[in-house]
Amino acid sequence: MQPEQSRYDRGLDTMRAIFGPGIESTLKGLAATNPDLARYLVEFPFGDIYPRPGLDLKTREMLTVAALTVLGYAQAELKEHIRGAMNVGCTHNEILEIILQMAVYAGFPAALEAVKTAASVFGEE
Amino acid sequence: MQPEQSRYDRGLDTMRAIFGPGIESTLKGLAATNPDLARYLVEFPFGDIYPRPGLDLKTREMLTVAALTVLGYAQAELKEHIRGAMNVGCTHNEILEIILQMAVYAGFPAALEAVKTAASVFGEE
Amino acid sequence: MQPEQSRYDRGLDTMRAIFGPGIESTLKGLAATNPDLARYLVEFPFGDIYPRPGLDLKTREMLTVAALTVLGYAQAELKEHIRGAMNVGCTHNEILEIILQMAVYAGFPAALEAVKTAASVFGEE
Amino acid sequence: MQPEQSRYDRGLDTMRAIFGPGIESTLKGLAATNPDLARYLVEFPFGDIYPRPGLDLKTREMLTVAALTVLGYAQAELKEHIRGAMNVGCTHNEILEIILQMAVYAGFPAALEAVKTAASVFGEE
Amino acid sequence: MQPEQSRYDRGLDTMRAIFGPGIESTLKGLAATNPDLARYLVEFPFGDIYPRPGLDLKTREMLTVAALTVLGYAQAELKEHIRGAMNVGCTHNEILEIILQMAVYAGFPAALEAVKTAASVFGEE
Amino acid sequence: MQPEQSRYDRGLDTMRAIFGPGIESTLKGLAATNPDLARYLVEFPFGDIYPRPGLDLKTREMLTVAALTVLGYAQAELKEHIRGAMNVGCTHNEILEIILQMAVYAGFPAALEAVKTAASVFGEE
Repeated sequence: MQPEQSRYDRGLDTMRAIFGPGIESTLKGLAATNPDLARYLVEFPFGDIYPRPGLDLKTREMLTVAALTVLGYAQAELKEHIRGAMNVGCTHNEILEIILQMAVYAGFPAALEAVKTAASVFGEE
Repeated sequence: MQPEQSRYDRGLDTMRAIFGPGIESTLKGLAATNPDLARYLVEFPFGDIYPRPGLDLKTREMLTVAALTVLGYAQAELKEHIRGAMNVGCTHNEILEIILQMAVYAGFPAALEAVKTAASVFGEE
Repeated sequence: MQPEQSRYDRGLDTMRAIFGPGIESTLKGLAATNPDLARYLVEFPFGDIYPRPGLDLKTREMLTVAALTVLGYAQAELKEHIRGAMNVGCTHNEILEIILQMAVYAGFPAALEAVKTAASVFGEE
Repeated sequence: MQPEQSRYDRGLDTMRAIFGPGIESTLKGLAATNPDLARYLVEFPFGDIYPRPGLDLKTREMLTVAALTVLGYAQAELKEHIRGAMNVGCTHNEILEIILQMAVYAGFPAALEAVKTAASVFGEE
Repeated sequence: MQPEQSRYDRGLDTMRAIFGPGIESTLKGLAATNPDLARYLVEFPFGDIYPRPGLDLKTREMLTVAALTVLGYAQAELKEHIRGAMNVGCTHNEILEIILQMAVYAGFPAALEAVKTAASVFGEE
Repeated sequence: MQPEQSRYDRGLDTMRAIFGPGIESTLKGLAATNPDLARYLVEFPFGDIYPRPGLDLKTREMLTVAALTVLGYAQAELKEHIRGAMNVGCTHNEILEIILQMAVYAGFPAALEAVKTAASVFGEE
């Protein structure tokens, strides 16, 4: 099955805008185990959804930080998206406000886990 | 235990701004079973968290729509917050974009359940 | 496969102690669709786990009310266990305290859903 | 944005094979609120994922029944997929075995909720 | 915003009673990233909820061990609360009974993850 | 309480068939902390459920890989069951297809976490 170039290219551009140029080696790592998941990740979330008009990239990244805080088990993805949120204009303070608000909707453990992840991202800078 | 008036009053003002004046009868219904949960709901989420600077009410409501879509089981709360999001400036389209994006993070069933809830809110208008 | 009488009988006795004699018609309803799930439900949770020494039935029911509040989607089971908790000695107040505490660990929507379920049980009395 | 005909058509064919011809009115209902979610649902899960070689449709539907039983909150989607599983060759007994096994991985409440949904589907036949 | 001394002080006293005097350095670590989350954690769960009459601290810690076992992703918080539960009078056996019972409500993987966490706490003593 | 030999023996045979002979030392490790959970794990999932007719072991392991991918927090159990799935006849490709399909039902983060776990298992071979 030939990748659909336009969705893939649009997705890769969106991922570069959010995650920076390092995203291509991350995708290569994923593709080594599951090339089709890597391709769908580029095409569907970042090729179809994120580039849609209606919400800008910064708002989308903020929503994703909220979603991953609620899920709780996906700290690796949360780490990437905290970095991504900052790349598209979120401040540390905005990220911490999002996480804090999630204590209301998913409980304090979800917020505490996410704060540790945020601290590890902020500490790398 | 005497309610701390300033947090409670700030919370009630925030809830009126988000949910409209009907919120007081909703709170009375909740207080009939569990007055302390009703009070904490006013004081902590809406008295402490929502009025914080750093994120405006519209952004906070968008994050909450995302969170409740991810949780999946809290459609009654999602319904209130879709109404609330519209009251503080969200368009139908923005709400649908948030729900659509959550298909990426919590799966299509979460998005499909939330879209039905959104449709029922939109249909009431 | 012949049901193991001792575990089954112990489980049925425990279920009667918690849920009252009406449990047998509930089990018949379940058995009409899935007799083996009905049998395992009697044997494993109520035949093996609940009768164990170390925690009394009231404490076990309180833990279960907490667990079902956190899960969020299982309000029908929560309703049965709120009734069960009261049958083995929990007061309304204790049940509401458990639900309130779960706002800390699973968020306010989980607590709000559970309070509605508790109110519907209390209202039946 | 013009729907990509080949993915959409492949998805619609897959959905007809699983859910029967009634799926088109279900999709129209969804599209009335959120046409893009309806389109992505056809294109990504049913256009991209389900038609992939490696697992046949019956196995995929069995996996989906397992997944929706674990999620717990998506009984409407579970209902559709129990019907779908039967359309592609699952017996009642296989569906009940899947649900029963999920008691091990997601607990008895998840299995009990799913059994009620299965019973309502079986009762319609 | 000035911390409300009475809720904060009551919360800190409760946390010291549950977690021991080491809690203040844990809170300092959290406050380094998110001082307001640290403050709300003291004020709301431990200042408002835990000191309420109706359930004693030991019962509250048992409920929290149940809740965190069900959540699954918050093993760091579970570790703290297993220690806390022992500080307020839970035996190893009671903690293991709680975890075992959660296999019924959240599945065996939740119980297995929690048992590993309990084993690591017991091994430190 | 004397273990019920027939369920226990059947469960141990099933576990050996799925996980290989190393399972006995894994069970000993678990039994060191919680011998009754170890015993119930053998008796209920593997003594009662897995050996039932209606679904073969390979199908059951595929369903379990799906369930654990959806749960998200139980990567240690997922690792064991990916190994187990391969022992009873699943190919790498089938395991990756299951995980990929779960992106539809539980979101991309769940699939990404599971793919990393699969990669670590495949890398050990």
